Amino acid sequence: MIGRASTAQKNRALLAAANALDVARAELSAANELDLAAARANGLEPALVERLALTPERIDGMIVGLRQVASLPDPVGAIRDMSYRPSGIQVGKMRVPLGVIGIIYESRPNVTIDAASLCLKSGNATILRGGSEAIHSNRAIAACIQRGLDEAGLPAAAVQVVEVTDRAAVGALISMPEYVDVIVPRGGKGLIERVSRDARVPVIKHLDGICHVYVSAHADLEKGRDIAFNAKTYRYGICGAMETLLVDQAVAAEFLPAMAERLRAKGVELRGCERTRAVIEAVAASEADWSTEYLAPILSIRVVDGLDAAIEHINRYGSHHTDAIVTENLGESRVFMAEVDSSSVMLNAPTCFADGFEYGLGAEIGISTDKLHARGPVGLEGLTCEKYIVVGDGQLRGQAAV
Amino acid sequence: MIGRASTAQKNRALLAAANALDVARAELSAANELDLAAARANGLEPALVERLALTPERIDGMIVGLRQVASLPDPVGAIRDMSYRPSGIQVGKMRVPLGVIGIIYESRPNVTIDAASLCLKSGNATILRGGSEAIHSNRAIAACIQRGLDEAGLPAAAVQVVEVTDRAAVGALISMPEYVDVIVPRGGKGLIERVSRDARVPVIKHLDGICHVYVSAHADLEKGRDIAFNAKTYRYGICGAMETLLVDQAVAAEFLPAMAERLRAKGVELRGCERTRAVIEAVAASEADWSTEYLAPILSIRVVDGLDAAIEHINRYGSHHTDAIVTENLGESRVFMAEVDSSSVMLNAPTCFADGFEYGLGAEIGISTDKLHARGPVGLEGLTCEKYIVVGDGQLRGQAAV
Repeated sequence: MIGRASTAQKNRALLAAANALDVARAELSAANELDLAAARANGLEPALVERLALTPERIDGMIVGLRQVASLPDPVGAIRDMSYRPSGIQVGKMRVPLGVIGIIYESRPNVTIDAASLCLKSGNATILRGGSEAIHSNRAIAACIQRGLDEAGLPAAAVQVVEVTDRAAVGALISMPEYVDVIVPRGGKGLIERVSRDARVPVIKHLDGICHVYVSAHADLEKGRDIAFNAKTYRYGICGAMETLLVDQAVAAEFLPAMAERLRAKGVELRGCERTRAVIEAVAASEADWSTEYLAPILSIRVVDGLDAAIEHINRYGSHHTDAIVTENLGESRVFMAEVDSSSVMLNAPTCFADGFEYGLGAEIGISTDKLHARGPVGLEGLTCEKYIVVGDGQLRGQAAV
Repeated sequence: MIGRASTAQKNRALLAAANALDVARAELSAANELDLAAARANGLEPALVERLALTPERIDGMIVGLRQVASLPDPVGAIRDMSYRPSGIQVGKMRVPLGVIGIIYESRPNVTIDAASLCLKSGNATILRGGSEAIHSNRAIAACIQRGLDEAGLPAAAVQVVEVTDRAAVGALISMPEYVDVIVPRGGKGLIERVSRDARVPVIKHLDGICHVYVSAHADLEKGRDIAFNAKTYRYGICGAMETLLVDQAVAAEFLPAMAERLRAKGVELRGCERTRAVIEAVAASEADWSTEYLAPILSIRVVDGLDAAIEHINRYGSHHTDAIVTENLGESRVFMAEVDSSSVMLNAPTCFADGFEYGLGAEIGISTDKLHARGPVGLEGLTCEKYIVVGDGQLRGQAAV
């Protein structure tokens, strides 16, 4: 059982899997070629075919990823907060694996490595159910991981690929709480909503990232423009990208023109509320814009009446992912940090910082917008849980301690 | 909104509610009398009628409970692990309320106070759906809590009683993830299984407590007898009571006779495997006994072939609640603590210690046998979650820190 493997064994397996990938490049490319040929024959969209391709650079990326996970600290077995109770027993917590993690994902084969390596390092068994269009690639990648497990003396069954790729296989995987402890869906919104709706097994999910930056009346406006620009343009396609900019009405006329100019020069389309459009040129934003994750060079802008209105907008239209305030005012920052109901709340920093590496967690399996169990970037710790441990020396309940 | 109430306000509300209960004794008894009369008229079982009764002692208990919860530390707003990252941002975690907690419970009206006080102290709004047979009592108790909230200047709507007591009301409550963040069912196994099966909202559940004590070949046998006796007989009806005693074959003949004598003298019925019955007199245990929570003076006993067999039995037949080993051997204790997959794992201590007060958590809303989010006794911390907070001063992503 993988849960009782030592840190050294798990690291050995990860490093051996990295070497196995390096050695198997020809094998991987041949397997990937089968998937690519089928995808083209089936008329798959070029963007999807592109995501499916295992280029030499992507294989390099997987190898680096495995070595990084090997270098992360092992969360399993950590004991904390042991303290003596009046009865004489000691009570604390020990971090342990969750057990069996099912990963359901779409066409990108590198998810196979990301997911399997994090699950392995955290002492969990993994059941991987990728898309049918990537089955040959996923099987070839999993074979490399299994070689790594084997070299480290660990059971190859700790990482399994579901060979049946129809929808029924997903249905089965998500309805067996006796055998699967948690499901992590990785992919588009449709997949994640479907899995969450039908699952009988707990799901760690990552839905939209409708992230906001609020520029307060007490903001350093130039800092605000830098932060908003970075939050929008660092990368349009990441879930931490800003989708809506909120500006206090007291500074809108001063803040927005220079902001708009910078964004427009970068090619970002602006959509604004009426008060925004009184100050800068922008397409009229519709109600739907406030709850849209563009993942594109489009930005909605709304002028709001102060802090409470900004918080209300974020909690109502946002997706509880990551939201930021720009302010130099301490009281305002305290209220915003406490009351915005998101997995990450930021002060004077762009939302695009929402990322496991930037947070010091290392690789992540996703960014959870759930409140229970894991919230925000989910790294090794999110794939484990804590149990209570109690140590005594014969203390009994209902009797005074000696 | 209750989530932004200060610690002082929440404590004031709890203490005012305690006083309101004290003042409203006559009112509470009259309301309870209506429920009791209806229960008797409907031919409810005497045991259930007894559970329904709000005696003066039970009202005292509720008042003490409220004051205890007021005296517990407030978990909300605690910030931990703030550290600088290479980018120059600071990243840490802040503990915050979950939001709205739905409590579904059966006839004991004191659950109204237990649940509402813990939810209030942890900054959550509560929707209470008790059984129809206790509706007058629950309404009168909730009115006292609402008086407390009102006195502290908090919205009375933070604690609500569902007035509709048919099953459809439960169905509605558990299928609105937009409005309810988590459901805590309190009651019998049937209720909890039904709620868990049908819920679309996350559930913190507490199922069986099939708890084991394993007496190893390296145990101090007299200590083992004391621990096993206490684990079984401290109280038969609590979920931490031992239901199965496992004994290493090497010491069974020495350990069991004196153990059996003590248990039999206390009136405990013994059911044993074949090897047990070769050493002491006992009814033959069936396969079903290993997975039965007796909550009664009945104990099943099995002789096993050492540590691994004991762990395998516990992980297979147990309910992942609380399990203990009695041993003086360090290596054995390390393996048992790491590999037994239960919410509490104990060394040389009886399983009946599994309790929020004994662990220093204060009052608990239940003992979770889930792995995700809250495991073991669920107190104030289990009713909250942590979000990431990020503090910067204009740091941008993709640019080297200054």
